[in-house]
Amino acid sequence: MTTVLISGLGLIGSSLARMIRKSKPDATVLGSDPDSDTSQFMLDHQLMHHRIDFETGAVQADVIILAGPVSVITTQLATLARLNLKTGVLVTDVGSTKAAVLAAAQPLMDRHVAFLGGHPMAGSHKTGSAAGAIQLFMHASYFLVPGTATEAQLDILKGLLAPAQFHYIELSADRHDQLVSTTSHLPHVVAATLMNTAQQQLAGEPNWHAGTAGGFRDTTRISAADPTMWTAIMTSNREAILGELTAFEAQLVTLRQAIESGDQAAIHAFFDQAQRARQTLN
Amino acid sequence: MTTVLISGLGLIGSSLARMIRKSKPDATVLGSDPDSDTSQFMLDHQLMHHRIDFETGAVQADVIILAGPVSVITTQLATLARLNLKTGVLVTDVGSTKAAVLAAAQPLMDRHVAFLGGHPMAGSHKTGSAAGAIQLFMHASYFLVPGTATEAQLDILKGLLAPAQFHYIELSADRHDQLVSTTSHLPHVVAATLMNTAQQQLAGEPNWHAGTAGGFRDTTRISAADPTMWTAIMTSNREAILGELTAFEAQLVTLRQAIESGDQAAIHAFFDQAQRARQTLN
Repeated sequence: MTTVLISGLGLIGSSLARMIRKSKPDATVLGSDPDSDTSQFMLDHQLMHHRIDFETGAVQADVIILAGPVSVITTQLATLARLNLKTGVLVTDVGSTKAAVLAAAQPLMDRHVAFLGGHPMAGSHKTGSAAGAIQLFMHASYFLVPGTATEAQLDILKGLLAPAQFHYIELSADRHDQLVSTTSHLPHVVAATLMNTAQQQLAGEPNWHAGTAGGFRDTTRISAADPTMWTAIMTSNREAILGELTAFEAQLVTLRQAIESGDQAAIHAFFDQAQRARQTLN
Repeated sequence: MTTVLISGLGLIGSSLARMIRKSKPDATVLGSDPDSDTSQFMLDHQLMHHRIDFETGAVQADVIILAGPVSVITTQLATLARLNLKTGVLVTDVGSTKAAVLAAAQPLMDRHVAFLGGHPMAGSHKTGSAAGAIQLFMHASYFLVPGTATEAQLDILKGLLAPAQFHYIELSADRHDQLVSTTSHLPHVVAATLMNTAQQQLAGEPNWHAGTAGGFRDTTRISAADPTMWTAIMTSNREAILGELTAFEAQLVTLRQAIESGDQAAIHAFFDQAQRARQTLN
């Protein structure tokens, strides 16, 4: 009988719990989260069996899934390296950046505990256990950064998460962090900046909401995501994100200069390039 | 019997045609567009009665709707001021900026022709007559910039567009252009810049599409819109857009500095402000 500890019962953690309850109904799911309402929701909806404190749960678990913000994950990895975990335990995480997580997992791996970094590429701007759902993650990509886990342990994890039918992609921590700095972290920075700019510029327009179309809503949607999670991402993937910002600013200067000088051919070329690139995405 | 000329049979023009065919089945709809495939599509789907050249259609029409890019609209307004239009004709447009359009309409208004600026705040990143639909515009806001049209003429226009149940908002051309520079033009600039940055940064990652989640797709969605239309918007609302860019860049510098210095409280405050602002939008 497998015992799984999930630490962090927000959107992702609660969604993984839903998958595990479906894939392995006889597994015992322990949940650890500082929020009592969240924990009660999970118990009420039979998404976990017991609320437990992190250290007590960790020593009982066969699989430990760290699903808090990256800043919490790195602290918990240090804690786990001090505990006497069960033989054969698999420790994994779902944090948004991987180099900082793998570095924090090193003391644990030095003790020959199996660790595997993970990151499902889906989610929602909504937060919390009630917003979680298997459907949010269906057929999503799931990045795997190999650590010390065996193939058999990897298969256990894939079995637990089977209901989402993830598309698994193995890559290094550095390559992961570079990739998501472009596809996830920069878009968040840009969306939040756009939202704050709009709020500032429209301070004198009480009814500006009526003037927004779907474009504004889509472009700013992810700025509604959890600030704590995103602050941890900015801190743990700082260098890559700053590099993306530099590239973005350079592109913006190109377009600004074309607008300033009224160079219609240059403006059109810029938008045309973006249109072609975006059309390959669907 | 009313005759309506729609010039420009793209996403918006074709959608207005659909509304008019529904609200006034006995009205004659004339369509003018340089694209033969577009025109044939409109005829095949009975969305208009005749394809006609602009000047020939204009002198027959009771209502003239200019639905091309702003650069085309301003040229056509100059043309209309030279023609002998029908007495009581209403000329209106659906261009994305209004100060340039109202200025271009001045010679026409000086001749006591009724003109009314308009701008429906909806649409799609898709383009063309086949992508048009009444549903895209249902319950959307429709900005009206009063010119020389009478209340009775305004009511005629509202009657023609009734199937979309627009929410009409009257405002000045300058206030319109300022408002949409924030809610529409800046988001487009940002989305296109983000798309071009991603393409540049991921040039060495052939399979990067697999690593994108809904956030990237939403944030960049509008960059797939028509480059010609958006080039005209950048030209005709240049000053307001440059002002928005300056405000955006200042916000971006604030966030960049917080990331550079690892100031977690400042990063969190920035994202928290964006989250709160975005949550008021739904």
